[in-house]
Amino acid sequence: MINVGLIGYGYWGPNLARNFAEADGVRLTAVADGRADRRDAAGRRFPGVAACDDALSMIDRSDVDAVAIATPLETHFPLAKAALERGKHVLIEKPFAASKADAETLASLADARGLRLMVDHTFVYNGAVRRIRSLIDAGELGELLYLDSVRVNLGLLQHDSNVIWDLAVHDLSIMDFLIDARPVAVSADGTTAGGVGHENVAYVTVHFDGGFLAHFHVNWLAPVKIRQMLLGGRQRMLVYDDTQPSEKVRVYDKGVDVDRVDARDGEMRRQILISYRTGDMHAPTFDRREALALVVREFADAIAQHRAPLTDAAAGLRVVSLLEAADASLRAQGRRVAL
Amino acid sequence: MINVGLIGYGYWGPNLARNFAEADGVRLTAVADGRADRRDAAGRRFPGVAACDDALSMIDRSDVDAVAIATPLETHFPLAKAALERGKHVLIEKPFAASKADAETLASLADARGLRLMVDHTFVYNGAVRRIRSLIDAGELGELLYLDSVRVNLGLLQHDSNVIWDLAVHDLSIMDFLIDARPVAVSADGTTAGGVGHENVAYVTVHFDGGFLAHFHVNWLAPVKIRQMLLGGRQRMLVYDDTQPSEKVRVYDKGVDVDRVDARDGEMRRQILISYRTGDMHAPTFDRREALALVVREFADAIAQHRAPLTDAAAGLRVVSLLEAADASLRAQGRRVAL
Amino acid sequence: MINVGLIGYGYWGPNLARNFAEADGVRLTAVADGRADRRDAAGRRFPGVAACDDALSMIDRSDVDAVAIATPLETHFPLAKAALERGKHVLIEKPFAASKADAETLASLADARGLRLMVDHTFVYNGAVRRIRSLIDAGELGELLYLDSVRVNLGLLQHDSNVIWDLAVHDLSIMDFLIDARPVAVSADGTTAGGVGHENVAYVTVHFDGGFLAHFHVNWLAPVKIRQMLLGGRQRMLVYDDTQPSEKVRVYDKGVDVDRVDARDGEMRRQILISYRTGDMHAPTFDRREALALVVREFADAIAQHRAPLTDAAAGLRVVSLLEAADASLRAQGRRVAL
Amino acid sequence: MINVGLIGYGYWGPNLARNFAEADGVRLTAVADGRADRRDAAGRRFPGVAACDDALSMIDRSDVDAVAIATPLETHFPLAKAALERGKHVLIEKPFAASKADAETLASLADARGLRLMVDHTFVYNGAVRRIRSLIDAGELGELLYLDSVRVNLGLLQHDSNVIWDLAVHDLSIMDFLIDARPVAVSADGTTAGGVGHENVAYVTVHFDGGFLAHFHVNWLAPVKIRQMLLGGRQRMLVYDDTQPSEKVRVYDKGVDVDRVDARDGEMRRQILISYRTGDMHAPTFDRREALALVVREFADAIAQHRAPLTDAAAGLRVVSLLEAADASLRAQGRRVAL
Repeated sequence: MINVGLIGYGYWGPNLARNFAEADGVRLTAVADGRADRRDAAGRRFPGVAACDDALSMIDRSDVDAVAIATPLETHFPLAKAALERGKHVLIEKPFAASKADAETLASLADARGLRLMVDHTFVYNGAVRRIRSLIDAGELGELLYLDSVRVNLGLLQHDSNVIWDLAVHDLSIMDFLIDARPVAVSADGTTAGGVGHENVAYVTVHFDGGFLAHFHVNWLAPVKIRQMLLGGRQRMLVYDDTQPSEKVRVYDKGVDVDRVDARDGEMRRQILISYRTGDMHAPTFDRREALALVVREFADAIAQHRAPLTDAAAGLRVVSLLEAADASLRAQGRRVAL
Repeated sequence: MINVGLIGYGYWGPNLARNFAEADGVRLTAVADGRADRRDAAGRRFPGVAACDDALSMIDRSDVDAVAIATPLETHFPLAKAALERGKHVLIEKPFAASKADAETLASLADARGLRLMVDHTFVYNGAVRRIRSLIDAGELGELLYLDSVRVNLGLLQHDSNVIWDLAVHDLSIMDFLIDARPVAVSADGTTAGGVGHENVAYVTVHFDGGFLAHFHVNWLAPVKIRQMLLGGRQRMLVYDDTQPSEKVRVYDKGVDVDRVDARDGEMRRQILISYRTGDMHAPTFDRREALALVVREFADAIAQHRAPLTDAAAGLRVVSLLEAADASLRAQGRRVAL
Repeated sequence: MINVGLIGYGYWGPNLARNFAEADGVRLTAVADGRADRRDAAGRRFPGVAACDDALSMIDRSDVDAVAIATPLETHFPLAKAALERGKHVLIEKPFAASKADAETLASLADARGLRLMVDHTFVYNGAVRRIRSLIDAGELGELLYLDSVRVNLGLLQHDSNVIWDLAVHDLSIMDFLIDARPVAVSADGTTAGGVGHENVAYVTVHFDGGFLAHFHVNWLAPVKIRQMLLGGRQRMLVYDDTQPSEKVRVYDKGVDVDRVDARDGEMRRQILISYRTGDMHAPTFDRREALALVVREFADAIAQHRAPLTDAAAGLRVVSLLEAADASLRAQGRRVAL
Repeated sequence: MINVGLIGYGYWGPNLARNFAEADGVRLTAVADGRADRRDAAGRRFPGVAACDDALSMIDRSDVDAVAIATPLETHFPLAKAALERGKHVLIEKPFAASKADAETLASLADARGLRLMVDHTFVYNGAVRRIRSLIDAGELGELLYLDSVRVNLGLLQHDSNVIWDLAVHDLSIMDFLIDARPVAVSADGTTAGGVGHENVAYVTVHFDGGFLAHFHVNWLAPVKIRQMLLGGRQRMLVYDDTQPSEKVRVYDKGVDVDRVDARDGEMRRQILISYRTGDMHAPTFDRREALALVVREFADAIAQHRAPLTDAAAGLRVVSLLEAADASLRAQGRRVAL
């Protein structure tokens, strides 16, 4: 039985608490939050759990083997560092850390202590995303050509960072999971339209070795909610639309065939013959279980089995590197920033 | 009565021919195309019209007062120049010209000769687009914040240029019509995924004086057809979805209000209070007439009334400048190119 | 403070319990269910509430002023009768009763005892439905012409009755709330396709004084979930689509104008000139609060204020009369059954 | 070469004319219409074709081997009879005839003379409908359980008949093509809401041997255009939505399994165990050619090959029988009318 203490009972914390409470082999023993109203809420919802006002003393408790951190981004590093130094396994909400340097420090520390350090890239555990990965692995899409993602709606969840750290982090973690090619550079543009102090409309482009291109539109000022991802392959292409009640993943038997022939019509010496294939569409079913339950399961199993979790510190570091590069590009007028 | 000669009876030419044939005060007198099968098709469809194999001699005909050019991009300049030099009014398919220099030369020539020179930015005459312009003029949207456009599908129409010149030209001409602020720079990124020799997936960002941002996703490798534009205003926001059979324009009474207050909670000295308004949605009706009929009408009226057409050479030049800057940015790794 | 005892902690009971627990002026004091696992679940979720295995003894408790009944249909009558006889106010899940006779007996009993008797027609408290009622009241739709409703999906919730009693009861209660005209007859057809023993695909038609027609398609064998209602008025028409994440209610400025003129063309002596108007579409916002919270509020207020609730026994009786007539029509090959 | 004369150049006639003009082995030689403006339109569009003001003399022409009739319903019978009596093959627009008796007379006459008599049930030649038929033939859907069709929009095309003869005729012809079971009775209900003199909102139910049920909602007073058909099978279910730009046919691997077991729980002696299967969705591609071109092809081939066409007089008669029964049911308060 792994005893877990949760730090932060704001927006996401209650979801983590519920999943820890319901998982086998795990026990939620303590919740820490600086606000009394949240401690009260946690106490009512989970009567047997200790409600603490101080995170550090909660980390120290003997009935806490592992710590889950669901606090604002800037506190991830000090809290995770404290927990690792006290020998506790750590699960951190995304984004993993506020900088690449912090992420590396945490990874080294966990490594040195032999502790599990995991980032909650929730979408990696989503049934639709895992189904897409299995389609890629089975060669259904053929060579991957591009990924385009739109994640827009009205309203922001965080006001201490820009929309890239808040929304694109989801899509970058999905990309990190799906795409095996190596990203080499990031460019980003955006606007602080509406005057909220940091970018609330932004575009991020990730360039890969070999020509694969990924592009992300994230936006807190859109009148409609869009969660749509296109993934183009040479054999097939897919659309993942998370706002659909069903058929969220649609695989199109469409693609492009390119031939080069010598032409003799006097106009072009070499002609490119392009043909488009268009065939059936197929919407596969997938595991509908709550992704966060699988996150909690993976954390517990990684601890029990003394192995790295699927979304380990390295995954957190990769995504933070992309976010940091996007910020650098924003400050450099959209210039391409090497990773 | 204005006698019109049409050059090019390929993809778009027959549409122009039909609209010239049906318009009042205009007569289609001649069609020129280098291919015999196309001349035959034009002859069968328009029995009284002269079918010519040579564009230049057609331009010379005494029963040709004005020339419409619907040929590949690289021929726009020589054909338009020849027609203007022979004292004929000219309507050119978009893109207006292959370079800013060519566009300027044509504009000067028409100006010197007192001839009408017009570009067929068809979407400017589209009822939905004109309705959006009237909503902006009426102040319904408030201060404009950003424009985001997606125009993607499977298959290319042109193989002599990249997807920006083929698809984004539509959206840039819409932007040129709708947005009064001055664009100052362009950046673009793309991929030749699939190996067709030029970019078939591309992203273009246009930066404006005052912070307004416009972004365009154009793509020949998408499994689904998307024609969606978001236009965010401080008062209201709209979605223009051209694939919808009805309610193509949807105006959302949604917006963002930002207040700055002095905060005394020890964490932030200045707090930004952001509130989102969300209200009714309204889908206005609009003129459903064929846009191209209005293009032909405007060309004839501008000639008859000795005035500049709505989409004059200056409009053509502005859009070509954007396209040229996008190409320059593509070649410079997405660097921002000043206009 | 009104003390409420809940009978039945199966599918719907937990929702009622949660809303009673959260409402002001109401206290959930007891839950009765014959199954131990459900009593345990209720006990864990609501620690201070008495979990009873016998409904009748729970009704007798001195700390139970009012009883909510969320049990299978055939038990509604005996349980409600027992509660009313013991002087307790009663809220019954829809359908109100298994027969018109039972419904009338309960209504008389409550009346004689001066007790509140309410049916949980949840949709009457739904913000979209109430918004539609206010549009009708404001004359926005003009004279009402017809109502068409489709409520289909895969899978049944109840297996002790046909799909009409399970699904159409929702739509009939909405109709009862929206339409002031008097229904005069019902016809119904259906099929037991798939062999489940009672109708799982059915169509119900309700005929009104004055020509208004209402029609309902309910279906447990549909591969897609549809929740769509058309309401046609002479001035405007609306679509209520409950599966949409937003813009659930759409009001179309569309209608039909009919004129009769004397024609002299030798073919018809009297010509009907019909013109269709088509204008803007408008999607009004509405109250998004949980309908069941308002049901509980109304029950408590009706008790406190000694007044009839909005969905009183008479409403329950009207809907049960329609259901009973539909069953009679089913057994009579779809013959029209007078109400 | 088969020489065809077309009677009626109103709404549908020009489509027939175009397809006859473009088909191999067929020549459009004459068009008859009582209105001069329509004859002029036909003459301009088809210069070499004789434009006649009298249908009967056109039928008599020696350069007319076959006659296509696209006139108002009440003239179908006299025109077709005259043509058959003069030894000409006949293609008639749907509905085939205004009564079952007329339809039978025409069928007998064609049979006696050895002439081809065909009805233009266009949807039977539609690629989506033929794809559905092939899915049924391949056993993909399993035993068929029900068909539900909705065909609604604003505005009527015909004002000399009710909405059933105008719209349901399409769906009944599709049903006639898809469903092999024998229809045994029809019931119908409707309203003349809006006061146009005949039903403009109607519901038709067709009962089959063996329990299969088909239901049709047709409506000229709907604010939105819906063209949706559900076809439920025991193995799979499909949705055919003709308003979708793509994926019009969607096959759901969903179904219902029913088992009967002896239960011993004291409540039910026999328990029905129902389980729902839910799996992938598949949208097959299909032939996108214009259906009417295939209608013309089939007419020409049937003549050339001396064989019955796919939609022969018998098909026309079956659909007219259903329409006539629906009218009888409308006049009898929705009573079930045997076929």
